[in-house]
Amino acid sequence: MEQITSFAHLKAHLKENNHIKRIAVANAADEHSVEAALQAVESGFAEVFLFGDVKQVPVSAQMGLQFTKRVHVVNVPDVQQATEAAVALVRNGDADVLMKGLVNTDVLLRAVLDREKGILPEGNIMSFCSVFEIPKYHKLLFFADAAVIPSPTLEQRCAIINYVTETARKFGVARPKIAMIHATEKANPKIAYMQDYLDIMKMHRAGDFGDIVLDGPLDILLALDKARGSIKKVDTPVLGDADGLVFPNFESANVFYKTLISFADAQMAGCLTGTSKPVVLTSRGDSAESKFNSIAMACALS
Amino acid sequence: MEQITSFAHLKAHLKENNHIKRIAVANAADEHSVEAALQAVESGFAEVFLFGDVKQVPVSAQMGLQFTKRVHVVNVPDVQQATEAAVALVRNGDADVLMKGLVNTDVLLRAVLDREKGILPEGNIMSFCSVFEIPKYHKLLFFADAAVIPSPTLEQRCAIINYVTETARKFGVARPKIAMIHATEKANPKIAYMQDYLDIMKMHRAGDFGDIVLDGPLDILLALDKARGSIKKVDTPVLGDADGLVFPNFESANVFYKTLISFADAQMAGCLTGTSKPVVLTSRGDSAESKFNSIAMACALS
Repeated sequence: MEQITSFAHLKAHLKENNHIKRIAVANAADEHSVEAALQAVESGFAEVFLFGDVKQVPVSAQMGLQFTKRVHVVNVPDVQQATEAAVALVRNGDADVLMKGLVNTDVLLRAVLDREKGILPEGNIMSFCSVFEIPKYHKLLFFADAAVIPSPTLEQRCAIINYVTETARKFGVARPKIAMIHATEKANPKIAYMQDYLDIMKMHRAGDFGDIVLDGPLDILLALDKARGSIKKVDTPVLGDADGLVFPNFESANVFYKTLISFADAQMAGCLTGTSKPVVLTSRGDSAESKFNSIAMACALS
Repeated sequence: MEQITSFAHLKAHLKENNHIKRIAVANAADEHSVEAALQAVESGFAEVFLFGDVKQVPVSAQMGLQFTKRVHVVNVPDVQQATEAAVALVRNGDADVLMKGLVNTDVLLRAVLDREKGILPEGNIMSFCSVFEIPKYHKLLFFADAAVIPSPTLEQRCAIINYVTETARKFGVARPKIAMIHATEKANPKIAYMQDYLDIMKMHRAGDFGDIVLDGPLDILLALDKARGSIKKVDTPVLGDADGLVFPNFESANVFYKTLISFADAQMAGCLTGTSKPVVLTSRGDSAESKFNSIAMACALS
């Protein structure tokens, strides 16, 4: 497939693809989530199942006749039951994406993680994967984990690398270049996670991560800024051209994420990976565009 | 004093102030450092002592007669001896700022940290403090530590808060608003440094940090982005108006620093604090402006 280079491109790609993804919204009682979900329907790549109290689901007013057959309201007045019903639809294979509506994240996650009725396959590691469109970067950037895993173990780091790789591939990046981020390119043995980085590089050379380009430790300049990174004269195949980043801890990923939004005019999308289907967890602070982008991302991944 | 709001303002302030700061350059054999130091002389706020092999100090060609009396070349052909001589000048009170020339950082730091001949007072904590001018932020931003202390102890966090406070004060911020950064505003007890944050807030309420506004944990949006931060409805006196940030670890500070440079058109300055006089450690990757800004910052702090 062609490489997707912007969110506008992603939207066009999903529409052209003519494959309708089914989205289950857990307690669809807030306008923001519902609007974003309906926008996905209107854009021609989604069918939505809005679980919640029918009196609170804000759809009828905005709905045009042309897409009503792709909007289903399922009346489940209780928030937790509505959430469990949305999760069940995904679990049963009748929906491709789970989306958070007006429900606390911990209630949603409890339903997602439930061993009997949830959607995290046993042994899978759940992580939060982001896609950013940065005006000053020449392509989409994929990274993790800004939200779920505070301080990854070696096993979790490997899973994160695989999620970032898979996400980039779903966006048409055939051979993703992935950087393991640190403050410098020097593998300081006093840093706790540095042994993980060294082990991962060994595993990579043994082929464990498939056909990707991987290097680290690298700093942000070596990973993303060819002009400034080149001055350091470090020999890395990633040099200023990373498709994906994995961060040493969630604080640094989170700072990266929010700094780009606040100060670099970046557009973003994000969803949970590791679950049997992607989970969209937008929050009130997200812009309308980023909510829509996150749904589009989840549809591309599912 | 009036609050300094940009690097242009800082330069004008230092010039008006009419106080000449003496800068000792350790092995002044690279054009970049020497040019930045001479620019400070030319700007009317510095006198420089260039230690190094006189045949390698690149000054004579550029020097105009008008400021030669403020440029001194001290012939010390050996790099380490030149470094030690520059440190000694600072230690003896005959220079106000130490600046790294063409010498490896570890050689310079060894001279700085030497118990007998160095310039780190016993018991002091050394940290790297940065000042950023970000086009999309309404004032200068002070933060630490992006380079020296990977994972601060409680004592080191307190020192970092004090350095950020002192730096902001030297720039005319009477009552700095300082945010302790985390991925969210929630004090998750599973996060190792969260107890430090809670302890520091107690110490702050007891007056340990003087007349500052301090809050944390806060994320980047709550600290720096009033529009996006407000949506979270978190009650914090910092809300989108931080003067200073302290980061949980040096990876997140480093990612912040480099992301702003690469993607937000930020101008920066940085120097070591905790030493008896500020130390300017520019690297080849820094722009000419940031080298000059770092010297100006050090002159303002000394």
